[in-house]
Amino acid sequence: MPELRRDPVMGRWVIISTDRAGRPRDFYQSSHGAAARQASTALCPFCPGQERLTPKEILAYRPQGGEPNSPGWTVRVVPNKFPALQVEGDLGREGIGLYDRMNGIGAHEVIIETSEHKDNLADMPSKRIEDVFWAYRDRILDLKKDLRFRYILVFKNHGAAAGATLEHTHSQLIALPVVPTSVAAEIEGCRAHIEQRERCIYCDIIRQELGDGDRLVAENPEFVCITPFAPRFPFEMWILPKRHAAFFEDSQKTHFELLAPILAESLRRMDRVLSRPAFNYILHTSPLHEKTNEFYHWHIEVIPKLTQVAGFEWGTGFYINPVTPEDAAKSLRDAQI
Amino acid sequence: MPELRRDPVMGRWVIISTDRAGRPRDFYQSSHGAAARQASTALCPFCPGQERLTPKEILAYRPQGGEPNSPGWTVRVVPNKFPALQVEGDLGREGIGLYDRMNGIGAHEVIIETSEHKDNLADMPSKRIEDVFWAYRDRILDLKKDLRFRYILVFKNHGAAAGATLEHTHSQLIALPVVPTSVAAEIEGCRAHIEQRERCIYCDIIRQELGDGDRLVAENPEFVCITPFAPRFPFEMWILPKRHAAFFEDSQKTHFELLAPILAESLRRMDRVLSRPAFNYILHTSPLHEKTNEFYHWHIEVIPKLTQVAGFEWGTGFYINPVTPEDAAKSLRDAQI
Repeated sequence: MPELRRDPVMGRWVIISTDRAGRPRDFYQSSHGAAARQASTALCPFCPGQERLTPKEILAYRPQGGEPNSPGWTVRVVPNKFPALQVEGDLGREGIGLYDRMNGIGAHEVIIETSEHKDNLADMPSKRIEDVFWAYRDRILDLKKDLRFRYILVFKNHGAAAGATLEHTHSQLIALPVVPTSVAAEIEGCRAHIEQRERCIYCDIIRQELGDGDRLVAENPEFVCITPFAPRFPFEMWILPKRHAAFFEDSQKTHFELLAPILAESLRRMDRVLSRPAFNYILHTSPLHEKTNEFYHWHIEVIPKLTQVAGFEWGTGFYINPVTPEDAAKSLRDAQI
Repeated sequence: MPELRRDPVMGRWVIISTDRAGRPRDFYQSSHGAAARQASTALCPFCPGQERLTPKEILAYRPQGGEPNSPGWTVRVVPNKFPALQVEGDLGREGIGLYDRMNGIGAHEVIIETSEHKDNLADMPSKRIEDVFWAYRDRILDLKKDLRFRYILVFKNHGAAAGATLEHTHSQLIALPVVPTSVAAEIEGCRAHIEQRERCIYCDIIRQELGDGDRLVAENPEFVCITPFAPRFPFEMWILPKRHAAFFEDSQKTHFELLAPILAESLRRMDRVLSRPAFNYILHTSPLHEKTNEFYHWHIEVIPKLTQVAGFEWGTGFYINPVTPEDAAKSLRDAQI
């Protein structure tokens, strides 16, 4: 049984999950193995016709109908075969002297974004990217009913260097009974700002960035993509809805219709400038059931994984970034896509 | 001129330093380059006889005496040739709308731990490891006089995967005009604990760990090495002084005489279990000039860099650790060294 443990100094929860040793790439294996593994698509568990290789599906979009766990789907959501957390059981919250632990209860799901093994999310038709957001939303709304969960983390690892263990493009979702420290810190920052100034800090950021223009990467009537003023990583990008909204899952159809093209455009610009880097994106949305409507503002953070700069901040918690966000934004804007 | 910028939501300062592009490994270069570079020691700027290849030394221990910037030293401290910050200038603190910035003022130094290119810190005689701590201490005490600085970060990157750009064993020191977020969060955690319970939280941790024994890696009369209860990374280790002390630089000779062997032993155990991994260690010590004596407790955090598990937490701020600290501690204790 996985465990959630809290660091008593930092208040940070970590998942201790020892059952994942059997997953495709274990942590002693070299990266050569990863490259070799991707040579063959024959046994890709995310390809149509191989549905038996994954746990039974939770959700699938089948425009022409059809049986569950059979081909014909465009987006498919399955439990992670090597979950970091397990769904069944109670939380078993417990103190051990100074320390706090609970059972590693949670959901860990994989959103297979396309049936085509060779597809790249950024190059997919906008309509199909929208469907990926609908899948995120449908799963969040469903998992929200389970009152054990306090946060749903949606993220994408693309490329082996960013932690993807399978090449077929996919996202992941983890429902947690705790709020991740990084989100809790964002919430605190937003709360402090509204208490002092009665405004959402992200709305203020958007206003300033649209005025300055120096860190603007892309824009449409509903969304903006910027390089943040104090980026941790070179070419870090944030995509924010212009209208204030705390919960991703409250988004409407018209929002997703404009989120899809700006995400695709931003990723294509990044692919062009950085020669298709490995990357992560993380959906930052409000913790579940919290009254954050006034002051939190959901967004997506995109982080290209340029491994050669990763040494310093590893462990120090302090970031040195060799590229200004203004230079990064200019390169991204100027990219021919 | 490098810049320090503050993220308005998280309160996190980052260094934007574009002048480092000329350093040995730039961030577009592949890791093959790194391996090739280490084949030759002829041009190692940290080897005796090549002193002209570094900026002029700040400090050196020469047991037999001798001229500065000539051979005969055992430990040598030089400015980083590709500094992330620059020493000269004023802070130029400034608000830009919502945002805060200041000039990238600070010191960035390299502590060359030995004159022998092939030495490995963990295998050096205890006396010579002590000298490395004396160099840390001497530099901290000197830099502390500069009232622009609020924190001195001492850390070691060992191995290319951990960010070391040169093979010859060395540590780094960065004096900062701000307190890193991770340290600020530790200070807050310690402060909350003492306010509630009138005790140092790290003293409490040490007491519990010595009682439990499950996460104990090594121990001597002055120090303890443990795997923390909620580790972010597999085989993460913390080395703490048993006696309460907030400031590393206040350590006495007898402390360093016992810190050297426990650090060496812990690293040798890690080398044995993980086949000499790349690693970082980071000295966590009190911010300068702050009244943290009662509640902060300096320590060293050691993090082996097992790259294959680094995918998930990258950017999410949430850690999944596939190895329990109890299993890690047992392997480390059982290692034949």
